[in-house]
Amino acid sequence: MSTFDLSGYLSRNRKLVDDALISIFGKLDRQRELVRAMTHSLMAGGKRVRPALALATAHALGADPAIALPASCAIEMIHTYSLIHDDLPGMDDDDLRRGVPTCHKQFSEATAILAGDGLLTHAFHILAAPGSCFKVFPGAETRLILVEKISAAAGINGMVEGQMLDMQAEKNPGDLPRDSAEALAHLKKIHRHKTGAMIEVSVASGAVSAGAGSDALTALGTYAQNIGLAFQVMDDILNVEGDPEIMGKAVGTDALHDKMTFPAILGLQGSKDFSKQLISDALDALNSYKEEEFKEKSEPLRAIAGYIINRKR
Amino acid sequence: MSTFDLSGYLSRNRKLVDDALISIFGKLDRQRELVRAMTHSLMAGGKRVRPALALATAHALGADPAIALPASCAIEMIHTYSLIHDDLPGMDDDDLRRGVPTCHKQFSEATAILAGDGLLTHAFHILAAPGSCFKVFPGAETRLILVEKISAAAGINGMVEGQMLDMQAEKNPGDLPRDSAEALAHLKKIHRHKTGAMIEVSVASGAVSAGAGSDALTALGTYAQNIGLAFQVMDDILNVEGDPEIMGKAVGTDALHDKMTFPAILGLQGSKDFSKQLISDALDALNSYKEEEFKEKSEPLRAIAGYIINRKR
Repeated sequence: MSTFDLSGYLSRNRKLVDDALISIFGKLDRQRELVRAMTHSLMAGGKRVRPALALATAHALGADPAIALPASCAIEMIHTYSLIHDDLPGMDDDDLRRGVPTCHKQFSEATAILAGDGLLTHAFHILAAPGSCFKVFPGAETRLILVEKISAAAGINGMVEGQMLDMQAEKNPGDLPRDSAEALAHLKKIHRHKTGAMIEVSVASGAVSAGAGSDALTALGTYAQNIGLAFQVMDDILNVEGDPEIMGKAVGTDALHDKMTFPAILGLQGSKDFSKQLISDALDALNSYKEEEFKEKSEPLRAIAGYIINRKR
Repeated sequence: MSTFDLSGYLSRNRKLVDDALISIFGKLDRQRELVRAMTHSLMAGGKRVRPALALATAHALGADPAIALPASCAIEMIHTYSLIHDDLPGMDDDDLRRGVPTCHKQFSEATAILAGDGLLTHAFHILAAPGSCFKVFPGAETRLILVEKISAAAGINGMVEGQMLDMQAEKNPGDLPRDSAEALAHLKKIHRHKTGAMIEVSVASGAVSAGAGSDALTALGTYAQNIGLAFQVMDDILNVEGDPEIMGKAVGTDALHDKMTFPAILGLQGSKDFSKQLISDALDALNSYKEEEFKEKSEPLRAIAGYIINRKR
């Protein structure tokens, strides 16, 4: 077992990201309802897994992790917008998120729609114009690549399509494949789009910000694909056996709604085995990149992979 | 009076933009519900005023208008997303737009939310990676400036804030200034954000795409500010005396909802005089830029200014 202090590492990175987000939104008038609605959700205690991946990736490649902060903040803003819109009455209609009232419950439905739109739009603004909020940031050409990669991951061939596929699966369960191999392939497709794409681009953004070469991008891409899927398998497992107090939300809801999940297809133990295999494949991918200092410097990435299947929320 | 054939000019530009949008979305699987929902609204017969401004601005500066097509398409996609979200039950709850069912009426509320999110995200993707859809496009540094300007205009200090201010004005009319000078200033603030910012950035995007210098940007910026406000004043006038058949939507709705509008503050004739003054100021701004060929090449921009206050829909 590694003796790496992941908890301390995540706390320090979390503070870096939170401070950067505060510096972005602190410049705005806090009396504005729109700003209050955006920060309500942005500062509601998210785990900051995606920023941690971007920062740890930049570190693994020998760069100052701060170079990945603009992309980290943009990705966290996009992640938060997706939660706000996902919680809307017209989507999942959820009242609680991370233990606090969802944006439309705390404010109004219209305000929540606009807060989501505002976070998404401002994420791209931060990438294009990081100068007023960040001391260090990648050059213009690299930032344009970040806009390209992040908009691809968040958009109609990534997260937004994943939300659509997920919704269609819930609405028309009769249309889903009944054969378990096909069902598993379809479930992977949904999650590769819905959550995988943004986790993959978190790692890719850290790498691109740090000026990674193609060998590093390939190894890190495989790592990210595997942990992205493991993250979702674990989410499904936690919905079966998680502690609602620790998670800040209800559990057992997937089974209640007869939702297509990994435990429903593979069983609970099968899902746990599958998530462990994915993490093992992720670590193998890191081992395949032979740069001299990478093995030591990628320790946080290895620890995050372990955390994904050991987390309680 | 100018003999310039604006109608033919707008038709040709409209075809340029429509063809480019078709090439962007034609690459996607048309069986996908998300793609169908996005194109339903994008191809529902919009006037394409914003793209026409970007293309006419590039032309006025002596560039091939096609250089402004990526920005034109991005801006039209953002404009369309804002209409889809604005029409949602949680916002204005409109059933018809441009004479056809709104996105959530034709599909579903969740699909409309995601279609809007998808259009907004893909707009930035097109700017970052125009290569697969456009033959000519600005260089990387210019495209990053376009991302910066367009995200600023569309976002929390631009259009999204304008929607918020507009909604607050409708919801809490008692909070609005009662003095007519203050009311006029507040109404201008709402519209400068809600519609003005995107009209201004349409002109600015055409100028930046064409490599404009600071003198041109200043003159064109003043032109755009004035026509942007005139556009909204005219929208309010059309809501009083427009023909619902020509407009494809109901009229008289502002007065019915006791909405703060230019006719409500300035009267109908006062609003018409105000819109004419704004267009006169816009034309003066164009005259202030003395580059040799600009006078002739800016004729489409002058004609569009005239169209804004003479349009019937």
